[in-house]
Amino acid sequence: MGFSFEVDKVAEGGGRRGRLRLPHGVVETPVFMPVGTAASVKAVPQSLLEVVGAGGKGAQIILANTYHLYLRPGHELVRRMGGVHRFMSWERPMLTDSGGFQVFSLSKLRKITPDGVEFRSHLDGSKHFFSPEHSMDVQIALGADIAMVFDECVETPATWERTRESMGLTHAWALRSKDHFELHKERVPWFEALGGATQSLFGIVQGGMYADLRKESAERLVEMDLPGYAIGGLAVGEPREVTREMIARTLEHLPKDKPRYVMGVGYPDEIEECARMGVDMMDCVLPTRAGRHGLLFTSEGRINIKKKEYAEDQGPIDARCGCMVCQRYTRAYLRHLFASGEPLSAVLNSLHNIAFYLDTMDRVRGELVAGVAAQAGV
Amino acid sequence: MGFSFEVDKVAEGGGRRGRLRLPHGVVETPVFMPVGTAASVKAVPQSLLEVVGAGGKGAQIILANTYHLYLRPGHELVRRMGGVHRFMSWERPMLTDSGGFQVFSLSKLRKITPDGVEFRSHLDGSKHFFSPEHSMDVQIALGADIAMVFDECVETPATWERTRESMGLTHAWALRSKDHFELHKERVPWFEALGGATQSLFGIVQGGMYADLRKESAERLVEMDLPGYAIGGLAVGEPREVTREMIARTLEHLPKDKPRYVMGVGYPDEIEECARMGVDMMDCVLPTRAGRHGLLFTSEGRINIKKKEYAEDQGPIDARCGCMVCQRYTRAYLRHLFASGEPLSAVLNSLHNIAFYLDTMDRVRGELVAGVAAQAGV
Repeated sequence: MGFSFEVDKVAEGGGRRGRLRLPHGVVETPVFMPVGTAASVKAVPQSLLEVVGAGGKGAQIILANTYHLYLRPGHELVRRMGGVHRFMSWERPMLTDSGGFQVFSLSKLRKITPDGVEFRSHLDGSKHFFSPEHSMDVQIALGADIAMVFDECVETPATWERTRESMGLTHAWALRSKDHFELHKERVPWFEALGGATQSLFGIVQGGMYADLRKESAERLVEMDLPGYAIGGLAVGEPREVTREMIARTLEHLPKDKPRYVMGVGYPDEIEECARMGVDMMDCVLPTRAGRHGLLFTSEGRINIKKKEYAEDQGPIDARCGCMVCQRYTRAYLRHLFASGEPLSAVLNSLHNIAFYLDTMDRVRGELVAGVAAQAGV
Repeated sequence: MGFSFEVDKVAEGGGRRGRLRLPHGVVETPVFMPVGTAASVKAVPQSLLEVVGAGGKGAQIILANTYHLYLRPGHELVRRMGGVHRFMSWERPMLTDSGGFQVFSLSKLRKITPDGVEFRSHLDGSKHFFSPEHSMDVQIALGADIAMVFDECVETPATWERTRESMGLTHAWALRSKDHFELHKERVPWFEALGGATQSLFGIVQGGMYADLRKESAERLVEMDLPGYAIGGLAVGEPREVTREMIARTLEHLPKDKPRYVMGVGYPDEIEECARMGVDMMDCVLPTRAGRHGLLFTSEGRINIKKKEYAEDQGPIDARCGCMVCQRYTRAYLRHLFASGEPLSAVLNSLHNIAFYLDTMDRVRGELVAGVAAQAGV
C-alpha cells in the first residue's frame, strides 16, 4: 500500500519523533507542511522549496487544496497531466484536504443536505455539488499521497447541539468517503508507475469546542480503522488555550501508532507546542500569507518589514537564521522591495518564513530525540 | 580606473566579439542587460539570475533605473547602504541610466529649462528637479559600474527643427554631466574598497529619426572623448526599419575601439540584429514585462501562455531551450499558474524569457567568433 508510520521515541510531554513512509518518499515527523493552494506554494519556485531551510533539505511534504484545483484547472485535467505531483513538478510527498473547509469558508450560497453540499464558485458563481464520493473522486484524480475524508465544518461559535448534529454528518460522510475511496483507490494516476501503491485516507475528528464531542468523534473515527487521523475545526477564531485544550483532549483518544495531524495551525510557537504534545503533522498558510503582507518570523519574535525603522537596517531578518534569504539580503533591501511593491518581496519573505517553520520543526525533532524539555515559545 | 574595452574580432556585417572590463567584473560582448528597475529584476531572485541561461552563467550585467531609485528608497539611502550592488546583493557589473527617459515618460507636469527638468513624482505627486549635475550626484551615490549622461528625450514624432533644438540641449547637458562627474567621481561608494576605481560615464547620441542629426550628435559626443556611447531615443514607436537605419547611420560615426550601447531595444531578433551590426550592449524590459503578461519567447516565435490550447500541453515552453524553467515545467502548468493569478507565474515566465535573451546573445557571440553569417531572426 506504500504507507507506514513508525515512532522512534516518545518524549515526556507526549511529543513523538517518527517517520511516515509514503509512495513519494519518507517524511520525518513531526513535520510542518507548507500549503500549495493551487499547486503552487505561493511565490516560491519548486527548486527553492526543495532546498529552503536548515541543511538545505527543503520541504518534505506539501499540501494542495482540493477545492481550488477542482475549480481550476479541474481535477480531470490534473489527472490527465499525470496527477498533481507531475503537474506541478514536485516529486516529494503531498497531501490534499477534502475541499470541505474551503466550500464552507470561501464559496457562496451553500446548501447542505445529508447527501452533500451545493455551492457556488467564489471565482465565477457557477454551481457545484460536493459529496463525500465526489471529494474522493477529485482527490484520487489529483493523486496526493494522503487524502482526507470529506467533513462538515461547523460555524463558530456553535451550540453543543448544533456541533453534535454536524459531527454526526461528518461521521456518516467519513464512512461514505472510506467506502468510496476503497472501491476506487486504484484509479490514482500513479497506481501502476509506483507498483500498485495507493493513497492513504485520513479521518478528521470534529466536535467543535466540546471535549466530550471531541472524544466521541475520535472514538467513532478510530472504529473506522483509518491509517491516520486529523483534528479539524480548530484555529477558527477561538482563544488559543481552547485550541490547545481541544488538541490535548482529542489526542488522548487517538491511537498511538498512527499519525496525528492538526489542520490549519498556526504560529511558530503553536506548531512547536503541538509537536511537543504529540502531534505529528501540521499545515498552515501563515508563512506564505504573512510573508506577502511583510510579516516575518524570527527567533526574537515577529517583525513587520514595512516599518520605517528597517529602512537602513543592514542586518538580516534574523541573525540566527541560516536560510538563503538571511544569508544574502538585508532588512533594508527587503523593506525597499515591500515598500516598492516589487514581486520579489513575496518570493523572499515567503522563503524566509517557510525556512523558519521548517527549521523550527527540525530543531524540535532533534530535541525530541535528545529528550530536551519544551522551551518557551517565540 | 577599472575600465577597458577590447574587441577580439569583427565579423563581416560589423558585429564585434569583445570584452568590457568593469570594476565589478568582466562582461563578454555583445551583451544583453536585464533591467532591474528598482534594484530588482522584477520577480527574479538574484540567486537564480546568477545562474539562468545557457551553461548556468547567468546575467553578466544588469541595469537599475536612476529615476526609480532616486524617488524610492532615495539615492542617499542607497549610498549609505554601500551603493546599489551591496544594497541588492548583486556583485556583478551594473549600469544606471540617467533618469532622463523616465522623467520624460513617467512623471507629470514636466517643465524643461536649459538648467534642467522640474517634474512631479508619478508615485505621490511631489515636486523634484533633475539637472545634469543632480543626475550625476544620484548616479554616483548609486554607484553602478557605468553611469549615463543626462539627456533630453524629444517627443515622437518631432520635426527636424524641434529635434535639433533638443539635441543641442542634450549636448550641453552631456558636457555639464561630464564636468560634474569628473569632479565628483571619487565619491562613489566603493572607491576605496576597489582600490580607487571609479564609474565610467557614457554619452548618449540623440537626433531623433534624422540621419544628419544623428551624425552631428555622434560627432559632438565623440569630441567629448567619453569611454562609451549609447544610442538613445529609439524604439519609441517608430517603424522597425527606421530604428535599424538610425542605428546603422549612428554606428558609422562612433569610434570602433569603444563600446556602443543601444538603449531600450528590443525583441530577441532585434537584439540579435543589433549585435550583428556592431552594437555591443543592449537592454530592454521586454523579457520581464512580457513574462508578467504571459508572453514567452521561443526558438519558434512568441507564444501567449494564457491560450486555451496550452491547457493540457505537456511540453516545455521551448523544446530547444535548456533553461531551468523548460527543464522542469510544462506549458500546462505555466498556463495554470498564469490563469490562476499565481505569483509564481511571473517568476517562471520572467526566468525563461531572460534565459532566452541571454542564450540568444551567447549564440551570437559564438557565431561572431566562428564567422557565421546572420540568420533569419525569430
